[in-house]
Amino acid sequence: MEKFLHEEPVVPRTDEEKQAVINRLKRIEGQVRGIQRMVEEDRYCVDVLVQISAINAALKKVGSTITERHLKHCVSNAVQQGEGDEAIEELIAVMQHISK
Amino acid sequence: MEKFLHEEPVVPRTDEEKQAVINRLKRIEGQVRGIQRMVEEDRYCVDVLVQISAINAALKKVGSTITERHLKHCVSNAVQQGEGDEAIEELIAVMQHISK
Amino acid sequence: MEKFLHEEPVVPRTDEEKQAVINRLKRIEGQVRGIQRMVEEDRYCVDVLVQISAINAALKKVGSTITERHLKHCVSNAVQQGEGDEAIEELIAVMQHISK
Amino acid sequence: MEKFLHEEPVVPRTDEEKQAVINRLKRIEGQVRGIQRMVEEDRYCVDVLVQISAINAALKKVGSTITERHLKHCVSNAVQQGEGDEAIEELIAVMQHISK
Repeated sequence: MEKFLHEEPVVPRTDEEKQAVINRLKRIEGQVRGIQRMVEEDRYCVDVLVQISAINAALKKVGSTITERHLKHCVSNAVQQGEGDEAIEELIAVMQHISK
Repeated sequence: MEKFLHEEPVVPRTDEEKQAVINRLKRIEGQVRGIQRMVEEDRYCVDVLVQISAINAALKKVGSTITERHLKHCVSNAVQQGEGDEAIEELIAVMQHISK
Repeated sequence: MEKFLHEEPVVPRTDEEKQAVINRLKRIEGQVRGIQRMVEEDRYCVDVLVQISAINAALKKVGSTITERHLKHCVSNAVQQGEGDEAIEELIAVMQHISK
Repeated sequence: MEKFLHEEPVVPRTDEEKQAVINRLKRIEGQVRGIQRMVEEDRYCVDVLVQISAINAALKKVGSTITERHLKHCVSNAVQQGEGDEAIEELIAVMQHISK
């Protein structure tokens, strides 16, 4: 993705915001290690698949928190600067890439 | 998921099979840590979203490797034992749960 | 979805915009009828699955066109009115519902 | 998809099976026309997005019914003929294509 707008968010993330996202990512990291153990222990395939889908769901939640913040800060700011369409097209392009 | 069939795969995974899946999961674990750093460093939201979608894609690949193995061993074996329909219904139920 | 904002888009869709979306939906309608024929003719399951995924992809494209327009008009307008956060939260809620 | 296996299902679909799937597809066709009307009537974008996601969910259900039947007949039959792996690899390839 080329970043026509900013190298970082317009409004820097607060420490609380960062910590909340990082805590969720640490839980996800633990879930990924949990699956490694399941595979080592030769656990039933179907149980492994269920765990993988739990991680995908958790990642989607993180993605949607980040998208919401991006819309409320970066995109809203761009709209007020009259650069809204470019910011929106960039986000739509990423979301299409993601939903693929 | 109730496991009507087996507590573990009919044919235990070979060490090579396990190692291949575990290596991919270790890479995914590293990608999750990478996103934590991006958030700490206040990197641009859109770049974080792109990384999250890369992890989702990598997890899907792992899931499909595990599903393939499950079909080739657990389900095929159940089919030969005349228990195929139960094994297939269990897998379909998980895949619906996952695609939700 | 409760519509806290408007019963219709701030900026009405132009006839060109409407026609473009409707044409794509008509093609999708034809694809759905095509699958009905495939089932009637007892076509191979895997080919039917491929057609279903083609429709899902086409519907995603329509959804993303509508989302882009919603952001560029309804949401951008709300941002300028100082109602941006509500509009963004509504959209995020729908996108989470959709990606489920 | 190349069809290394059969031009049609091993066990032809019963009329009941066909009718059940076709009825669901007719409902989906009606939902697609409903969205065309919503766009013509300039209905609120978010409501259109919700309808699109309802169609995607309905199509997934049809796909999973067809996948289940494919596993219970075509794939199970191939397993009994000792051609299971090819049938499974074909299905996995389609599912990866679909989940993309």
